[in-house]
Amino acid sequence: MTRVHNFNAGPAILPLDVVQETAAAVLDFNGTGMGIMEISHRSKEFDAMIKEAQADLLSIMNLSADEYAVLFLGGGASMQFLMVASNFLKTSADYIVTGVWAKKAYEEAAMLGDAKVSASSKETKFNQIPKTWNLNPDADYVHITTNNTIYGTEWKTLPETGNVPLVADMSSNFLSRPYDFGKCNLIYAGAQKNVGPSGVTIVIIKKSWMEKANEKLPTMLNYRTHIDNESLFNTPPCLPIYAFHRTMKWILKMGGLEAIQLHNEKKAAYIYDVIDKYSDFYKGHVVVKEDRSLMNISWNLPSAELEEKFVKEAKALNMVGLKGHRSVGGIRASTYNALPLESAEALANFMVEFYNNNK
Amino acid sequence: MTRVHNFNAGPAILPLDVVQETAAAVLDFNGTGMGIMEISHRSKEFDAMIKEAQADLLSIMNLSADEYAVLFLGGGASMQFLMVASNFLKTSADYIVTGVWAKKAYEEAAMLGDAKVSASSKETKFNQIPKTWNLNPDADYVHITTNNTIYGTEWKTLPETGNVPLVADMSSNFLSRPYDFGKCNLIYAGAQKNVGPSGVTIVIIKKSWMEKANEKLPTMLNYRTHIDNESLFNTPPCLPIYAFHRTMKWILKMGGLEAIQLHNEKKAAYIYDVIDKYSDFYKGHVVVKEDRSLMNISWNLPSAELEEKFVKEAKALNMVGLKGHRSVGGIRASTYNALPLESAEALANFMVEFYNNNK
Repeated sequence: MTRVHNFNAGPAILPLDVVQETAAAVLDFNGTGMGIMEISHRSKEFDAMIKEAQADLLSIMNLSADEYAVLFLGGGASMQFLMVASNFLKTSADYIVTGVWAKKAYEEAAMLGDAKVSASSKETKFNQIPKTWNLNPDADYVHITTNNTIYGTEWKTLPETGNVPLVADMSSNFLSRPYDFGKCNLIYAGAQKNVGPSGVTIVIIKKSWMEKANEKLPTMLNYRTHIDNESLFNTPPCLPIYAFHRTMKWILKMGGLEAIQLHNEKKAAYIYDVIDKYSDFYKGHVVVKEDRSLMNISWNLPSAELEEKFVKEAKALNMVGLKGHRSVGGIRASTYNALPLESAEALANFMVEFYNNNK
Repeated sequence: MTRVHNFNAGPAILPLDVVQETAAAVLDFNGTGMGIMEISHRSKEFDAMIKEAQADLLSIMNLSADEYAVLFLGGGASMQFLMVASNFLKTSADYIVTGVWAKKAYEEAAMLGDAKVSASSKETKFNQIPKTWNLNPDADYVHITTNNTIYGTEWKTLPETGNVPLVADMSSNFLSRPYDFGKCNLIYAGAQKNVGPSGVTIVIIKKSWMEKANEKLPTMLNYRTHIDNESLFNTPPCLPIYAFHRTMKWILKMGGLEAIQLHNEKKAAYIYDVIDKYSDFYKGHVVVKEDRSLMNISWNLPSAELEEKFVKEAKALNMVGLKGHRSVGGIRASTYNALPLESAEALANFMVEFYNNNK
């Protein structure tokens, strides 16, 4: 098996360890004579695994299990747009709109109640993170999206929101850098970028906040249902949770989030350095350098024809997933945790060569 | 690898072909140099696979793609309890309550509007399928649960509901026998019994019925969202869909639903025959023989001690998953499509031996 240089935006490359361990577990999970797709979610073997996954995650995030619950839910982050607002929007909530997904989260909340855009970088095509915002001190919560997969911006630190609870959609940079996670009342992330395959969304929720949640919600939309049943109210996505569990072990083996961040900074530097050096040819989408994402790097070439040629020639060199999101075009390289340094280096080298051949 | 005799109620045994193909695809999907957990759901390779899975399913069910859409959703069948009622409960809906899951479906609908229990076998501990029911000819729909995993009853044919649309939760006997599927306006099934791993729920919906659906629903709860985007509104559970795709190929290879039904009848007969022969010792839960499920067979022994001994000795013989559901106790053997004949035979032989040693 030859693995390609996988720059997919998600589902995306996973650590080779995780891939191989999951393949083995499909055949046999922990010597049970059953694969991970075939074992009961109520079995002691599965129970031990899911509990370890929850504990490892909290340990990596430096959060306490007394304070926070970890949930594994289906439906994707898009379902969390609805669940967050259903559970916690009572009077008014603030949304900082930094890209397509942040906007979708806002729009879903606005269907249910009084959601306000308290800051937005839409006017400048989402090429930066807003530096000021207009927060309501009495808001039920403020919602941010920590990384913008399509445009390539990223919050480098979490904002101060005073007494207003902070909710963060971390789907596309989850566990790629240390954050002060304890600032958040609720964090959610679709697994399929940094922590596993699609099919499971991780929700970390401050248990005490549930006292303020709305009552009388549909069973499956109510965070209480899943907290009270430790994510086993109904059958969870077992294999995606297993792959998540193995990814937590890989992060721990790599040295935790500080080490992961260093690794990610090195990879992104390869590519941003070429963009900066040949800035007339490679036009980075994000103008404010401090807002540049370590996860998704977006740029344009002088013409659509050159962009097409770039993608095609890269593919011939085994580099896939470089076409920009269909809503914006251009080129995008996603450099998630599991992308090896060699892949980033190969892309940077190709960019220099392509520049020399096409300038 | 020694595979056990897997009588789990779900997640449950899958065909060995499907297990091995999925393990291989985790390492490399169709020669792409990426595993099935790592490839984009917008790639042409994934797109071809999901479309083939949809087409194979409709072909197996003898339904037309012009009339029906196939959706792959997260959240489990429990999320469908909510979605069915959200989309289609306007004035009143009828629920036939034949077990725990049917009751949950009813209760969820009753939180949203006027849901009525039009028949129930609760009085007799769900030991049969009601033979009469009190349907409202103006109901928005009537909801049934075709197989009752916990108690072991099964609808052998779908009921006539006249002009009232029929909705069927087929989670635990989906594709285990031919039905006149065209009688239904909507069918849903969690994959983790007969058609794949947990993490994906299959919904088959008559497209024309959407004209009658409620407007202004939350995005992710609205069937329109998923029909319009062919299940790719957001990232779907890719690996579970792949395993489902391989399971469709296996069903086709086995000869379709008629052949599958014969196979299931043979397996169930092994076990029911022992129950009938030693009926003072093995007390089958379902008294009306025609209502006996081919998928889940529930019985009691003369004492809880003997039941515990039975489960323990069976386990020593490599038979797992025989403990009854925690809500009812006793013994339960699930004999889904993928369970080999030899496993049912091994269990029947053990039952005779256990009877002789403990009568």
